[in-house]
Amino acid sequence: MSNVVVVRVDEPILESNKKIASQLRELFASRGIHVFEFLGSPGSGKTALIEKLIECYPGDLSEIAYIGGDVASTLDTERILRHGVKGVQVNTGGACHLEAIHIRKALRELDIDGVRVLFIENVGNLICPIYFDLGSSMRILIVSVTEGEDKFIKHPVTVMNCDVIVINKYDLVEVMEVDVERMISDARRINPKAPIVLTSAKTNYGIDNLAKILGLM
Amino acid sequence: MSNVVVVRVDEPILESNKKIASQLRELFASRGIHVFEFLGSPGSGKTALIEKLIECYPGDLSEIAYIGGDVASTLDTERILRHGVKGVQVNTGGACHLEAIHIRKALRELDIDGVRVLFIENVGNLICPIYFDLGSSMRILIVSVTEGEDKFIKHPVTVMNCDVIVINKYDLVEVMEVDVERMISDARRINPKAPIVLTSAKTNYGIDNLAKILGLM
Repeated sequence: MSNVVVVRVDEPILESNKKIASQLRELFASRGIHVFEFLGSPGSGKTALIEKLIECYPGDLSEIAYIGGDVASTLDTERILRHGVKGVQVNTGGACHLEAIHIRKALRELDIDGVRVLFIENVGNLICPIYFDLGSSMRILIVSVTEGEDKFIKHPVTVMNCDVIVINKYDLVEVMEVDVERMISDARRINPKAPIVLTSAKTNYGIDNLAKILGLM
Repeated sequence: MSNVVVVRVDEPILESNKKIASQLRELFASRGIHVFEFLGSPGSGKTALIEKLIECYPGDLSEIAYIGGDVASTLDTERILRHGVKGVQVNTGGACHLEAIHIRKALRELDIDGVRVLFIENVGNLICPIYFDLGSSMRILIVSVTEGEDKFIKHPVTVMNCDVIVINKYDLVEVMEVDVERMISDARRINPKAPIVLTSAKTNYGIDNLAKILGLM
């Protein structure tokens, strides 16, 4: 139980993360790589949505790379690699979020020659990941309707600092008796700028819409 | 973005937390209070299950108290207070878990005279809360079937350190096409001791079973 943890405000760590993130952003820009970071609770559907975006990608699959963060296991990366794209897994060894330094290390194992699109899937967590810039072009927040209507109100910092808001598992909206209009208006109030997209990785609902917003179609 | 955060291994903080947790445990024992900590992802159903346990509690409601942890908002505590029990909200101000010191502070505002049962609802997060002992009698992990089948494998530290494992939203098991047998065997392998309970706060399935395991019926 001792090789982990968590604590409070640590400005130097945030500052150091910011510097590495800037270097990464420059690297990605110089190579013309669009980097999409996916954030959300465990089970919100991050991996499934990335799989769907890979399936509808109009270019060659060698242009796509993936970095998956998790506390333990390589399940998500295995799922993604089955689609024929390249990728690496980062196991944070207990930490509840990825940091820029994890991405820098992952890039040592990932050949990004010819890559146009890099998907980064953060550790499943609605709270901590947002504080650590990973050098991405866009941060996409995924909340599924099965998590309840109040998730945006409960996590305002994450909502206000993301670029796209996805309400996923929309096929279950009636079964769950969720008031999606309320979710949308809560999200809109906290973050008036980010596009809000309804999706279902199961029925493909909204996937083309999401792909267009990310510039992938 | 700066009034929060996260870090890594910090033994002194864990040690200090352990001491306060021991003091809390002694306090609770000396007063005959059973303390149940609920852990799980955002939207796993922690609040709903506590509500159901309150509804079926055979004693007087003045014997129940609640402490709810969240990054922001008082939504959960408002839900619980409507049932006529006493409770307080702890807003962690960004931190992704409760610590024993939060419980000590909350007890200053909570009259525990005559209380027999204290429910502590941790911040919605499958990763960090498990590292911080809060002085509880039992830690109850809630994972809902809507989060996918792989959540136990992905969060082994949390699974192996909890006392009861609840698989919630069981009414949705067919809609979600989830292999519950696989979930149960994964959980059993990681933690052979903890009872595993299937529940649905919507249909009341398994609630009496959970109440019995916690000694509340």
